[in-house]
Amino acid sequence: MKSTTTTITVTAGRRYDYVDVTDDLRRAIKDSGVTDGAAIAFCAHTTCALLINEWEDGAMADFRRHLTDLVPHDGVYYQHDDFQIRTQNMHDDERANGHAHVKAMLLSATSHAIPVVDGEPGFGTWQRLIFFEMDEPKDRTITFHVFGG
Amino acid sequence: MKSTTTTITVTAGRRYDYVDVTDDLRRAIKDSGVTDGAAIAFCAHTTCALLINEWEDGAMADFRRHLTDLVPHDGVYYQHDDFQIRTQNMHDDERANGHAHVKAMLLSATSHAIPVVDGEPGFGTWQRLIFFEMDEPKDRTITFHVFGG
Amino acid sequence: MKSTTTTITVTAGRRYDYVDVTDDLRRAIKDSGVTDGAAIAFCAHTTCALLINEWEDGAMADFRRHLTDLVPHDGVYYQHDDFQIRTQNMHDDERANGHAHVKAMLLSATSHAIPVVDGEPGFGTWQRLIFFEMDEPKDRTITFHVFGG
Repeated sequence: MKSTTTTITVTAGRRYDYVDVTDDLRRAIKDSGVTDGAAIAFCAHTTCALLINEWEDGAMADFRRHLTDLVPHDGVYYQHDDFQIRTQNMHDDERANGHAHVKAMLLSATSHAIPVVDGEPGFGTWQRLIFFEMDEPKDRTITFHVFGG
Repeated sequence: MKSTTTTITVTAGRRYDYVDVTDDLRRAIKDSGVTDGAAIAFCAHTTCALLINEWEDGAMADFRRHLTDLVPHDGVYYQHDDFQIRTQNMHDDERANGHAHVKAMLLSATSHAIPVVDGEPGFGTWQRLIFFEMDEPKDRTITFHVFGG
Repeated sequence: MKSTTTTITVTAGRRYDYVDVTDDLRRAIKDSGVTDGAAIAFCAHTTCALLINEWEDGAMADFRRHLTDLVPHDGVYYQHDDFQIRTQNMHDDERANGHAHVKAMLLSATSHAIPVVDGEPGFGTWQRLIFFEMDEPKDRTITFHVFGG
């Protein structure tokens, strides 16, 4: 059985931007030499996510609007951002991103397990692997673990 | 190590119907010959999902009602369905299903990774693998990738 | 290829409590002898979940508050809890936990697939594996399946 782990770095243009990483996944599969097996896509962060859906500007705008309505970044108290009382995990570039932690936990879209068929992700016609930034942009690491024969 | 990928086709009776596919998963595991390992269940679409929960009509009705309250299919503007401005991915049977894309991204329930123990899914007492249609019904493909010894 | 399945039992102090199980995952990886591969973390229940996020009291309080606002446990009708009409899966310790089923389906956080790198979970700096109880506490089983070389 073959098995390879690789990482890519992606950086969104601004908060709530999407980045299509499907071709990065395809390249990780090709480079692994696996033709039949599976791939794990893993987002190594707590305020961004990996979605599998259609890459269509309208649908992505709709999702952004609904999610920020459900979990607003303005006008709502977040204890995570209350630096008067917070003591844990404080670091130098601490930002007011409590809203993004809540969104990330609600989505629970840190990892996906994707069949590999004939050397390609076993996606349906409209499926794309999409990185979704919910915090102020910075470099983000996505890990692909591909395994199979 | 054994490794097998199979697909099934499911079709819901109508929008928001559930289909219990636990026995299909069990059959895919049996047919693979794997007794100890894991199974990936993958939904190859962008407007339906795979849930792992209890098959109980009340709980499923409760979920349907809450989800459609959070992301309504009527009375809300979806840019995905605004065919005056949309240009991407237009195809012949294009439907007003922007609400279902938003629901699918919110759930992020495209794939599950399930331990296989003694030739069975390692489910708890009440867990079932449940297909959930959020769009107008049509044939849907679910992929099972089973691997292990 | 090595492949091991282990289980742990966790019990929250009360409803909506979090339990950090990252070290249990690390131990399962160590015990498997796998240095490069992947781990599946699976929650064998229908009214609790596994989150991957930051272990910070504020962020976890924020998430608890938002989730219970979106899906309240009080003042809302749940058909799952309507024992006048319910007929399926009735058992002796049946509890009014319809809200927790809805939350669990909304999160769809039953399983995660996590790369294993150098004998450790391939987590980012702030990522922890967190058990989240949404029902009245009882013993809960979490399964780890670790595989690789």
